[in-house]
Amino acid sequence: MPFIYQRTLRFQDTDAAGVVYFANVLSMCHEAYEASLTSAEVDLKQFFNNPSIAIPIIHASVDFFSPIYCGDRLLIQLVPKQIKEHKFEIRYQILSADEQLLSKATTHHTCIHPGSRDKIKISPEMLQWLQKWGEEEPTVIESFNQ
Amino acid sequence: MPFIYQRTLRFQDTDAAGVVYFANVLSMCHEAYEASLTSAEVDLKQFFNNPSIAIPIIHASVDFFSPIYCGDRLLIQLVPKQIKEHKFEIRYQILSADEQLLSKATTHHTCIHPGSRDKIKISPEMLQWLQKWGEEEPTVIESFNQ
Amino acid sequence: MPFIYQRTLRFQDTDAAGVVYFANVLSMCHEAYEASLTSAEVDLKQFFNNPSIAIPIIHASVDFFSPIYCGDRLLIQLVPKQIKEHKFEIRYQILSADEQLLSKATTHHTCIHPGSRDKIKISPEMLQWLQKWGEEEPTVIESFNQ
Amino acid sequence: MPFIYQRTLRFQDTDAAGVVYFANVLSMCHEAYEASLTSAEVDLKQFFNNPSIAIPIIHASVDFFSPIYCGDRLLIQLVPKQIKEHKFEIRYQILSADEQLLSKATTHHTCIHPGSRDKIKISPEMLQWLQKWGEEEPTVIESFNQ
Repeated sequence: MPFIYQRTLRFQDTDAAGVVYFANVLSMCHEAYEASLTSAEVDLKQFFNNPSIAIPIIHASVDFFSPIYCGDRLLIQLVPKQIKEHKFEIRYQILSADEQLLSKATTHHTCIHPGSRDKIKISPEMLQWLQKWGEEEPTVIESFNQ
Repeated sequence: MPFIYQRTLRFQDTDAAGVVYFANVLSMCHEAYEASLTSAEVDLKQFFNNPSIAIPIIHASVDFFSPIYCGDRLLIQLVPKQIKEHKFEIRYQILSADEQLLSKATTHHTCIHPGSRDKIKISPEMLQWLQKWGEEEPTVIESFNQ
Repeated sequence: MPFIYQRTLRFQDTDAAGVVYFANVLSMCHEAYEASLTSAEVDLKQFFNNPSIAIPIIHASVDFFSPIYCGDRLLIQLVPKQIKEHKFEIRYQILSADEQLLSKATTHHTCIHPGSRDKIKISPEMLQWLQKWGEEEPTVIESFNQ
Repeated sequence: MPFIYQRTLRFQDTDAAGVVYFANVLSMCHEAYEASLTSAEVDLKQFFNNPSIAIPIIHASVDFFSPIYCGDRLLIQLVPKQIKEHKFEIRYQILSADEQLLSKATTHHTCIHPGSRDKIKISPEMLQWLQKWGEEEPTVIESFNQ
């Protein structure tokens, strides 16, 4: 089951075109990420101040299908997935209250040592989060005969 | 009873000093204002696109008593009050989850015609909102003798 | 020649990790886009309020190679390119003052009618902007013999 | 002479009412403050990461006289003034290109030790900045005779 974050589009999120300012959709996705961490019992204050691991975003992309207006109630669905020993991605779907797909986004995150900025393995805490909200692996059925 | 809005401080709200960026406290107060409108059945999309009335902020002030960190759960208390035929103010208190006062803010709002920008009376819809969330007037006890 | 926009990273652009908040890199790219419009004599106030054409962003992506700190002086290089009758893309490179590549981004923009949201052709004004700042086509050298 | 910072209002600074989002005026004032520090040879990266002094904003206020639109070229005038051993204020005026007063703001800043958060004296570096951009005291001409 993916993590779902509810968010109302605020006046601050809009621009003079009357709809959401494009980059703010990525900020809302990051809010969903933070909420998913909290709900896996990750302490956010420690998470963003951890002297032994930092997890910067190294890539982000976003597609827009429909305009989003101030006051719109949104559902942000989030699915994380490990892609390397030190790297994971998150896929987001932004849906209207009646579950129309309004926008899609992806972020890539790499674990590094904050001082040296060397790559390090994903921490046990984050592996737990990946397991909690990640896609289930398709069950592998091994057939010995044939 | 004042309106209370719950808000978690997000990574986006912080700055390189590790705490909330000062102007973002006012943005959170505006979020509380929008939430109070919704809970008085004001339609936000119409509210911010109304061709016959606009209600710009003409003054804002904010005081900071304690740093606010990413992940902090906040309570934003809001009390509106009419101060003129065409003008109201809102007082905000930003409290920690254990009800310590972290910040205080005030905004002043004037009703105008969007085209001419002339002052106009507060609308019935907003008077209802003022009544719903506003401070009750202290009962005035008049004493005739003396 | 690409358009180059100079920008200092501001405190507001940073987050509690001490570096630029990821989505703000896209906002700086949009600033560069606006500056490139101005320098092609597009009036921004009219551009964002044009009743006959709107040009929403339908896709954005960004890659991060190095952290960017408050006070860093940046050069944002912008190259637009028409990709369909109604669509163009912009490629951005964010460089440090000593021309190290810090980040790269791309945005896709579609011309629509603001009312119907139907696709329409890129306007003459924007074709001029595309010509002014767009990549020159590689000179095609035709060889007649073989 | 006050410090003057030039700034174009960007699309990101606007909201669905088509004008600047109120809290963003304070952010532009903070940008002017950062630019005034740089021009007094304060290193911003060090300034915002200084382990021996932090200078949080403890109060901010802003008044709005005229709407500000995307593309508007602004002049932000800044005048700092020491008000206590550990405290200074900055007054800002936001002017249009033709020097009409659009907005006014004030911020109060207190010097503290980042660890203990105890008040400390304004640093020599900041006293120099105060002297460079601060209001000159009106020359007091004492006349003994007459």
